[in-house]
Amino acid sequence: MSDGQVFPHATGAALATVERHQESQDLVFYAGWFCPYVQRTWIALEERGIPYQYKEVNPYKKEKHFLAINPKGLVPAIEYKGQALYESLILSEFLEDAYPEYTPRLLPSDPFQKAQVRLQIDYIGKNVIPAFMRTVQAQQIEKQQEGLKDLYAGLKQVSERVKGPFFLGEEFSLADVALAPWVVRDYIVAEHRGYKREEVGGGWKEYAEHIEKRESVLKTTSESQHYDVIYGRYLRDEAQSEAAKAIRAGRPIP
Amino acid sequence: MSDGQVFPHATGAALATVERHQESQDLVFYAGWFCPYVQRTWIALEERGIPYQYKEVNPYKKEKHFLAINPKGLVPAIEYKGQALYESLILSEFLEDAYPEYTPRLLPSDPFQKAQVRLQIDYIGKNVIPAFMRTVQAQQIEKQQEGLKDLYAGLKQVSERVKGPFFLGEEFSLADVALAPWVVRDYIVAEHRGYKREEVGGGWKEYAEHIEKRESVLKTTSESQHYDVIYGRYLRDEAQSEAAKAIRAGRPIP
Repeated sequence: MSDGQVFPHATGAALATVERHQESQDLVFYAGWFCPYVQRTWIALEERGIPYQYKEVNPYKKEKHFLAINPKGLVPAIEYKGQALYESLILSEFLEDAYPEYTPRLLPSDPFQKAQVRLQIDYIGKNVIPAFMRTVQAQQIEKQQEGLKDLYAGLKQVSERVKGPFFLGEEFSLADVALAPWVVRDYIVAEHRGYKREEVGGGWKEYAEHIEKRESVLKTTSESQHYDVIYGRYLRDEAQSEAAKAIRAGRPIP
Repeated sequence: MSDGQVFPHATGAALATVERHQESQDLVFYAGWFCPYVQRTWIALEERGIPYQYKEVNPYKKEKHFLAINPKGLVPAIEYKGQALYESLILSEFLEDAYPEYTPRLLPSDPFQKAQVRLQIDYIGKNVIPAFMRTVQAQQIEKQQEGLKDLYAGLKQVSERVKGPFFLGEEFSLADVALAPWVVRDYIVAEHRGYKREEVGGGWKEYAEHIEKRESVLKTTSESQHYDVIYGRYLRDEAQSEAAKAIRAGRPIP
């Protein structure tokens, strides 16, 4: 499949979740089943039990209404009372603010603890995700090794701050949500770049296992052969997503 | 003055503010008078009237206690009940959460409006600040022009979303705070890179003037000849701050 096409819908457990969210709701969730940033918001919606209507966005054929309310055309996005919001982390915070009665909450109420969660999310975005993507997209062995070294360092730091089983301890929070989609996808760097969870240290292996077994993570994950096709393009550095292009250019991921 | 030294304290209006905040308080504010990220948090503290003790951090000679509670040694940072927090945007959100009784608030209570403020802040961080820094640090004319073009585009987008006089309208918010330190410093790209506020469009000139006249902005700004020395190093691409190094390497600003 060329980069002009993408498998059109979720599969596996994620497909069942999509099918459960086809009814019209106040909140419309615009998603790409394969996108890790989408999965962050999807996990949050599932954790909190917020009613939403799932709409698949074909990145090569975006619908008029979607672009009318969200000109940048990025996913994840939500439509809420006729207006659009985007950016996975801003969506997570919005869901906390706008639906206070839905539990569990994914941010603690204590201001200092909340700040710690946000610091961990910030660290993940600056250190783990770019290293992951650089490792995937690197074509030369030295660059792959370099990326892997950075990825290990980032994941180890992340793990050392985890109280266990999750970042805050028993409570699952946005700090775990922010990272989960890359835990789901780390098999890709294992199969293609020599990554091994055991080699990270700091408790990473155990933490990753807790995350990947979380129900909301399982329910938003599709079958791996479909991720393989998409990541094949990234592994050959042929992907044309905004994130891929940013990594190639050495720019911040938009 | 080589890069191993920096003028040791605030001057002008900022010095008066420092002197007003020398008493011991629950909240200690670790600052570098010259740092734009510090100025964001400083503006927020001044807007909200939160009591704080100002402590100057010499980037070349960081004190033991500061590093003990904040091993990364970055400013801005705060010490609150014996624990440290850092990252200018996370500090801004923390001040909103931890001091709800101090007014004015810098985030609206409406969840959707709050998300809009955060989106604007996100846009500023991804588009305006990197373009500003690339323009400053670029040594070749073509690179300077390229940076300026990106900076103008970013500032125009920012302005088009401004309701006026500030982002939300009458109310000053974190969306304005996030940008203000670069408004204060845009004279540098005007004097050295050919930037002109009038050339941006979208209402930028008026918006910038509203921001720079805001009392909390004036009270946290030092005399320009002292910024000139520091920016001299950036203009020659000799600066060694984490942000400067990140821009050179094409990495996200930490």
